[in-house]
Amino acid sequence: MSLIVQKYGGSSVADAESIKRVARRVVETRKAGNDVVVAVSAMGDTTDDLIDLAHQIATIPDAREFDMLVTTGERVSMALLAMAIKDLGMDARSYTGSQAGMITDSTHGDARIVDVTPVRVREALDEGAIAIVAGFQGFNRDSKDITTLGRGGSDTTAVALAAALGADVCEIYTDVDGVFSADPRIVPKAHKLNYISSEEMLELAASGAKVLHIRAVEYARRQGVTLHVRSSFSDHEGTIVYNPDRAEEYEVEAAMIAGVAHDLSQAKITIAGVPDVPGKAAAIFTIVAEQGANIDMIVQNVSEQDTKVTDISFTLPKADAQRVLDAIASEGEQIGYASLRLTEDIGKISLVGSGMRTNIGVTAKLFTALKDAGINIDMISTSEIRISIITQADLVTEATRVIHTAFDLDGDAEAVVYAGTGR
Amino acid sequence: MSLIVQKYGGSSVADAESIKRVARRVVETRKAGNDVVVAVSAMGDTTDDLIDLAHQIATIPDAREFDMLVTTGERVSMALLAMAIKDLGMDARSYTGSQAGMITDSTHGDARIVDVTPVRVREALDEGAIAIVAGFQGFNRDSKDITTLGRGGSDTTAVALAAALGADVCEIYTDVDGVFSADPRIVPKAHKLNYISSEEMLELAASGAKVLHIRAVEYARRQGVTLHVRSSFSDHEGTIVYNPDRAEEYEVEAAMIAGVAHDLSQAKITIAGVPDVPGKAAAIFTIVAEQGANIDMIVQNVSEQDTKVTDISFTLPKADAQRVLDAIASEGEQIGYASLRLTEDIGKISLVGSGMRTNIGVTAKLFTALKDAGINIDMISTSEIRISIITQADLVTEATRVIHTAFDLDGDAEAVVYAGTGR
Repeated sequence: MSLIVQKYGGSSVADAESIKRVARRVVETRKAGNDVVVAVSAMGDTTDDLIDLAHQIATIPDAREFDMLVTTGERVSMALLAMAIKDLGMDARSYTGSQAGMITDSTHGDARIVDVTPVRVREALDEGAIAIVAGFQGFNRDSKDITTLGRGGSDTTAVALAAALGADVCEIYTDVDGVFSADPRIVPKAHKLNYISSEEMLELAASGAKVLHIRAVEYARRQGVTLHVRSSFSDHEGTIVYNPDRAEEYEVEAAMIAGVAHDLSQAKITIAGVPDVPGKAAAIFTIVAEQGANIDMIVQNVSEQDTKVTDISFTLPKADAQRVLDAIASEGEQIGYASLRLTEDIGKISLVGSGMRTNIGVTAKLFTALKDAGINIDMISTSEIRISIITQADLVTEATRVIHTAFDLDGDAEAVVYAGTGR
Repeated sequence: MSLIVQKYGGSSVADAESIKRVARRVVETRKAGNDVVVAVSAMGDTTDDLIDLAHQIATIPDAREFDMLVTTGERVSMALLAMAIKDLGMDARSYTGSQAGMITDSTHGDARIVDVTPVRVREALDEGAIAIVAGFQGFNRDSKDITTLGRGGSDTTAVALAAALGADVCEIYTDVDGVFSADPRIVPKAHKLNYISSEEMLELAASGAKVLHIRAVEYARRQGVTLHVRSSFSDHEGTIVYNPDRAEEYEVEAAMIAGVAHDLSQAKITIAGVPDVPGKAAAIFTIVAEQGANIDMIVQNVSEQDTKVTDISFTLPKADAQRVLDAIASEGEQIGYASLRLTEDIGKISLVGSGMRTNIGVTAKLFTALKDAGINIDMISTSEIRISIITQADLVTEATRVIHTAFDLDGDAEAVVYAGTGR
């Protein structure tokens, strides 16, 4: 008898009918002889509606109360799911984050899990019941206050429970069939991956792939939890996200190149005419750090021998761009530069695959494909298993397709995208 | 510095604007130099919506999960109210029933409070904060499960907190100005009572007056909590519901006759031709008791000397009537009767006032008034401070007005009824 943790996103429990469908799937899994623990998100847009309500009340809602408010969404869906399962004749019990022993630090809105003590969940399983746990939430032992885990929190809840309970697999149900070689919405020929290493999944998530949240993947990798990303709208097998300790089981099956991710959320800041003397870059990036912005790529071009000045460009989240630009401008004199420019219409495309380690020529093939398509590369960064390039925003779709084809990732069939609001 | 517990019903926190208005009132009370604890109901129809959802999921929703579900309503409103108060620059913290130490038995849906340990509420007050508590909910110490207090639960929460904290007064905010001498919706000249004894309030609530729930009044009486029923839509003084221990303060101010209540929720069952031998009535009312129905009035008319049979009539909640009727019919032979009749179009009118103890002729005046109006009395029952009569449903409005006038209860002005869905 194996233990399976299942996570259902908001689109999978959007209304009473969807909740009943999920209940049937949970019951099937139980009847197949497995212990089942379910982590569930809030119904459809509930969380967004609660957030709207909070902003009607206060411009900056109190963080503690905000968590108290938004955690009600998962409590509604978990109670309804437990009712639906009981209505099918199976025993089920729902637990809030604190009842399930999801202990976090005190960072309201973005709490980190510090301990998981699922005593009551374990009791429920021992008594043959299905345990339903509210995703996205925990509580802080010191303040005894309710906390939330931030974006993708329900995925993290599921992974944390799977780790604490020693589950055989953590199934993440969403509204697509699994992890794709590219976003099917812009690459219709993207194909579903049967297997991907957690390392590749991390790179894809970090490069803009939306299907899994990076924190949950990191947690699963650290804790050695095998993920199975699949659709709650079909019975198809999804994508197995495996860890190094189980590589031999899956690696042979896995593709050399996992896929292509794109990301339109970045902006570029260029500081031209910076004196090419030691400490200038340090000064600039200290200012950026003080603004709490995460820099993604950096390019510093070789300085002209005669002028002894250089240009520094870097990318960062659009949301932080203006703030950082102003900070640099205001503290500009201590740096000394000729001009400062913000470019927002850029896009990042990343090719990810552990095969890069052993296959030479991947970079060459990528650049050739883009050149043949007449697409200019603005910036480049690489990791051991990833190549990312920056190009104009309006060329991202074309570039992604070109790369997808060049690396033989195109599937035969068109990828099916199911209805639903996403995660 | 006094401690005031305030309770706001669903119509008082129906939307963001209402919640802000309530927040302003709470802050005013705090700024006036009082410690303030607030018990709050769910916003508007939230609870009904959650109940609908539960019934879309399961015909008979699991009781534990049902409580888990519906308690989210108060958590939303309490968090929003705390945000609104903080937005006004005052410190506020919201607490769930369990965080506030509202310990109950394990009767889901209708739990009884067994202990109140508001440690965190007290801490919040000591630190100068306003404490907001989710009404209607508690938790069971043994099962560690969330429970609900049944109808009027938020009133009970407020009263229980007031008792446990030794509050000076418990203010129950609703959408009318206070307790009226009759339902202003059917007696436009009903006037607001400034003072009423908890004993009279109990009789009025038991006789159909909706403004306060009987369980909360009982709790307040038992614990010696003074209630102040008032409107959250105006600044008018409301109605003080006082207990025997403070009678001397208020009694002189209180009226001899408190008011007239009406109740259309009862039905009447008449069993005709019952042999007038010992044990028959006992047999009948045992059957009724087995059906869990509460009998209100009973009339057994004197049996004819010759026939030695009698008729027995009693009233009970409409909801139980058919079930009880069937039970009597099925076990009828052991009783032996001529006919069985269910009458649903009846209404009860009750005149309540502690003055009845000392004033003779109240009954005579009541009957005369009804006779003059040509209204037939079907059944009668009295307590020390109440006279109730049963008449045809379609005569209830007229009868209530006639009695209201006969006992000089008519006010000069028309009673103002504020917008809102009631409690």
